[in-house]
Amino acid sequence: MLRLAVYPGSFDPPTLGHLDVVERAARLFDRLVVAVGRNSSKRPLLSVEDRCEGLSRSVAHLENVTVDAYEGLTVDYVERVGARAIVRGLRATADFEYEYQTTLVNRRLRHEVETVFLMTSPELGYLSSSIVREVALLGGDYAGMVPPAVADVVKLALSRGV
Amino acid sequence: MLRLAVYPGSFDPPTLGHLDVVERAARLFDRLVVAVGRNSSKRPLLSVEDRCEGLSRSVAHLENVTVDAYEGLTVDYVERVGARAIVRGLRATADFEYEYQTTLVNRRLRHEVETVFLMTSPELGYLSSSIVREVALLGGDYAGMVPPAVADVVKLALSRGV
Amino acid sequence: MLRLAVYPGSFDPPTLGHLDVVERAARLFDRLVVAVGRNSSKRPLLSVEDRCEGLSRSVAHLENVTVDAYEGLTVDYVERVGARAIVRGLRATADFEYEYQTTLVNRRLRHEVETVFLMTSPELGYLSSSIVREVALLGGDYAGMVPPAVADVVKLALSRGV
Amino acid sequence: MLRLAVYPGSFDPPTLGHLDVVERAARLFDRLVVAVGRNSSKRPLLSVEDRCEGLSRSVAHLENVTVDAYEGLTVDYVERVGARAIVRGLRATADFEYEYQTTLVNRRLRHEVETVFLMTSPELGYLSSSIVREVALLGGDYAGMVPPAVADVVKLALSRGV
Amino acid sequence: MLRLAVYPGSFDPPTLGHLDVVERAARLFDRLVVAVGRNSSKRPLLSVEDRCEGLSRSVAHLENVTVDAYEGLTVDYVERVGARAIVRGLRATADFEYEYQTTLVNRRLRHEVETVFLMTSPELGYLSSSIVREVALLGGDYAGMVPPAVADVVKLALSRGV
Amino acid sequence: MLRLAVYPGSFDPPTLGHLDVVERAARLFDRLVVAVGRNSSKRPLLSVEDRCEGLSRSVAHLENVTVDAYEGLTVDYVERVGARAIVRGLRATADFEYEYQTTLVNRRLRHEVETVFLMTSPELGYLSSSIVREVALLGGDYAGMVPPAVADVVKLALSRGV
Repeated sequence: MLRLAVYPGSFDPPTLGHLDVVERAARLFDRLVVAVGRNSSKRPLLSVEDRCEGLSRSVAHLENVTVDAYEGLTVDYVERVGARAIVRGLRATADFEYEYQTTLVNRRLRHEVETVFLMTSPELGYLSSSIVREVALLGGDYAGMVPPAVADVVKLALSRGV
Repeated sequence: MLRLAVYPGSFDPPTLGHLDVVERAARLFDRLVVAVGRNSSKRPLLSVEDRCEGLSRSVAHLENVTVDAYEGLTVDYVERVGARAIVRGLRATADFEYEYQTTLVNRRLRHEVETVFLMTSPELGYLSSSIVREVALLGGDYAGMVPPAVADVVKLALSRGV
Repeated sequence: MLRLAVYPGSFDPPTLGHLDVVERAARLFDRLVVAVGRNSSKRPLLSVEDRCEGLSRSVAHLENVTVDAYEGLTVDYVERVGARAIVRGLRATADFEYEYQTTLVNRRLRHEVETVFLMTSPELGYLSSSIVREVALLGGDYAGMVPPAVADVVKLALSRGV
Repeated sequence: MLRLAVYPGSFDPPTLGHLDVVERAARLFDRLVVAVGRNSSKRPLLSVEDRCEGLSRSVAHLENVTVDAYEGLTVDYVERVGARAIVRGLRATADFEYEYQTTLVNRRLRHEVETVFLMTSPELGYLSSSIVREVALLGGDYAGMVPPAVADVVKLALSRGV
Repeated sequence: MLRLAVYPGSFDPPTLGHLDVVERAARLFDRLVVAVGRNSSKRPLLSVEDRCEGLSRSVAHLENVTVDAYEGLTVDYVERVGARAIVRGLRATADFEYEYQTTLVNRRLRHEVETVFLMTSPELGYLSSSIVREVALLGGDYAGMVPPAVADVVKLALSRGV
Repeated sequence: MLRLAVYPGSFDPPTLGHLDVVERAARLFDRLVVAVGRNSSKRPLLSVEDRCEGLSRSVAHLENVTVDAYEGLTVDYVERVGARAIVRGLRATADFEYEYQTTLVNRRLRHEVETVFLMTSPELGYLSSSIVREVALLGGDYAGMVPPAVADVVKLALSRGV
């Protein structure tokens, strides 16, 4: 029985908090797919391709982790790849309402998909993609907030103009 | 003494959680007006007219409930129709800050208007208009999240293009 | 149709926040019973009789409000007096979990009883019986935290030794 | 690779919310141990033995679930049985602080043990052992709040006097 | 040793809650700079210049308080003016996540800058710039929500069209 | 003008989170008194004297910090020592309600005393005296959760039997 889980998100950009969740989930499941959603309508910092590249290079040391992009409902993607579980990180100050709503809507859409929450390390729990975007756009030093490979991708994206 | 209450909101679209609040409030007050605000500047899924139609058909079984649309401050509308109470639903994970702020600002604007909160049924408490909009726009099955009459209206709106 | 509501609590002691809720509810319902529960197992500051006396004198200006004591399940008492609604105050920082749990358990025990929440005035919302007890027992000035009649009762109780 | 998880708690008494978490976790792990902690210093409703019996009979339909009792630190027990994960339910209104603290303290005590959170069904999320205890001790009908086998055990315990 | 603190924000418009925080902080520090950030990308009600004018006239009675505008990262501004502390108000219902994230990101960007939180008066704690904007744009009476000098500035801005 | 602040608490035992707050506050004020309250009625792990000794040895490197014990209302002690500010740590998951209530009650008791909140480091924010007590009493390794000098004091107390 192969245990496959999906860790979905917008990852714009991926943070050290995301990487922490990936590393924890990789120890719990046989295979983990980090899945970048294409649906976000907000003005992005990174293209979906850049996010996937940053993620792929950041998880290269984890044998059972792959990176993918998807469109449409998350639960449809989860079913398509044959997974039984969605993984999400939970931060001390996370938007619990959003996670709660999304989990229960996903459960109603696909009853057999379970969402599993892992607690992000507290010293990374204040990080979010949006605060990294804000720091990066104001010229602040975001290097200690994202994996090194992601920092390279963000730097390149900023140099091309966002 | 006629006890009239107003249940204001944007209802874009009305959900089964909204209907649950309407049914509870209809038992507590002599007459209830479900009032659709025209003020929202966000890109809507349904026109105000479609929301009113969906609501009217969904509350047709409740004799003391009517549906209306309004512009401007909620408390001004409440006074105009001669009501003494505003009704709001409270979900386990509701944006309590928003409800708290709105209630106290309304109280300052019209001291005599009281806001009354009812607890939404827990199995509906995760529903919100925004999550239904998201599911609908991604092609997901929103039928179990809104009253049947609203599902018809949403389907029609989506077929016309939003 | 007589609209009767019950405002249950332990009221040890009644605070200005409780009185604020009583005054708001008295405007919404035809008759309101403030009901002091006898069940609390904690070491009390005031006897149930003292709490009732303090409350009775504090609500004497409200014609449609009476004070009572009860034992057993709240919903059984509510049914016994023929009420259809329970009233509770909601503070900015209230123990929302407790109110949420109690409401849904009460709803399961007696489906026809609705719980109605009113927002306590923000300048009173930080008051709670337990913090008044603590201030009183440490010799602090609790006079501005409770109705004058309650202050008398507390003073007497403290002079008798608690 | 055998995936073993532990679902620890005081389960005094086990509720339908606990059973919901057990059933979800049983689908995610190869084997699940529901572990009743002996440490609680509070005045119990059920003895540890009664809790284990109620749980055992309630999970009899789940082949990969067993029930056990333990003393001392949870992470020590988890290591002793060779598990890699702790399972906890998360309710809309759960005491998130308690879960957050416990998870991070457990992680510091045993770095290799991961805590996995599952979302309890919303229609059961308001249930807690303490509220069931309160209803039972006041003579209320707790039958719909606990598994049938647990209701039997509670009834017997109450008839013996608590 | 001169103790200088910065109270940063967007102040669009400044509210009585902001003024309450300024008055409290002015008693704790030798000098306080109220600093209006130019970064906000949202459609403003007031220009940065109007906000500064409204603030300056509202704090004219406080000798050790000045008003300034800044661009870029807050911590860079704080360092530029030689301050060691950032002041922020904390409301009963504040977006704690936002304050928590911002504080920890600022601490990572400039380790030596400390953020100090003061509790806003509860009777002003429900006020926010966004709710004042909403009331003002719907033609409601915002006069009791902002300092008199700010009310003048808002009135002028609305008369010019926003 | 000497700026004196008081950091009150029960400190049973002092944790690394407490020490973090002390070190931050010592940089903001001219002099800081860490004040151990004698009022707690709970069964303590450490005597007030042991807590003071553990604290004194843990803050010996901070020239402007002293340790004291007090009885009665905190604001009375604050006034007695001539301080103008109370310092409290704020954790991501802190009992905000408790801090909010206490601050506003203290403000009502002594209007001129301001409470100042500092954010505890996130990697220490999950620590609390009660969870350290629990770990210590169950025989777990609490050494990384308290300052070394406190660990010595706790070890001694446990060896004497609590």
